[in-house]
Amino acid sequence: MSTLYLEDLAPGQKYQSGKLTVDTDQIKTFAGQYDPQPFHLDEAAAQETIFRGLAASGWHTAALTMRLMVQGEFRLAGGIVGAGFEEMRWPQPVRPGDELRVENEVLEVRASKSRPEQGVIKVRCTTFNQRNEPVQVFVGNLIVQRRQ
Amino acid sequence: MSTLYLEDLAPGQKYQSGKLTVDTDQIKTFAGQYDPQPFHLDEAAAQETIFRGLAASGWHTAALTMRLMVQGEFRLAGGIVGAGFEEMRWPQPVRPGDELRVENEVLEVRASKSRPEQGVIKVRCTTFNQRNEPVQVFVGNLIVQRRQ
Repeated sequence: MSTLYLEDLAPGQKYQSGKLTVDTDQIKTFAGQYDPQPFHLDEAAAQETIFRGLAASGWHTAALTMRLMVQGEFRLAGGIVGAGFEEMRWPQPVRPGDELRVENEVLEVRASKSRPEQGVIKVRCTTFNQRNEPVQVFVGNLIVQRRQ
Repeated sequence: MSTLYLEDLAPGQKYQSGKLTVDTDQIKTFAGQYDPQPFHLDEAAAQETIFRGLAASGWHTAALTMRLMVQGEFRLAGGIVGAGFEEMRWPQPVRPGDELRVENEVLEVRASKSRPEQGVIKVRCTTFNQRNEPVQVFVGNLIVQRRQ
């Protein structure tokens, strides 16, 4: 897999990741450290909540999405550096045993006027479960290096 | 600290968190698991990147922000459940030794027409470092229970 510079990127391109499976222990460990709420920590307590069962923290899904992006085919020059997001949502909960994969679609490519060595791309990053249901969607702006 | 129901919330209210300090080991451990890129893993390599030194993953900052929110005074009925974000950005990197705190400001409060037991609030969540510089800002929509 080659490194992608700003000049290599164009709207409509799609880049895939590998897959990973989330298990109960991982969900509870992440939640214990970063999002200690009943629906992420305890199966029985989670039944009584809006999630109706144990669900991964949305930030856990975001973190796993990042790992899949970094290790996938979307190898941006200078790394994956987010300037910010315009939209982010979690349409479905992530459950124990779910298998996740990520697809990045390039929406826009812009050279920087003030910094000729780089540009910004707008990307839609969708995380799917094993039923191809989106569990996370964000539209973000990433900084990408130009070829020198 | 009492639980906050939809009826307790109004635009302009601000809720504070406690504080926590991020150290080098935590930054590298999180990055190793979720965002394995040189600027989050290795001081020397990070010097050569856009960050000019070791910086926490933005998703690490987001996860720590969630912990501060859950453990702070913004105790929402039904828990802190994000429906999605409209905007998220990281204006400054988080560096080893930074002390973080979170302020939540209520921007809008809306009852749900289809689900009378709940509503949605729009919140601006700002994470500050020890110099009161914002390191993360997001505007999100959270689901909140009404009093029965």
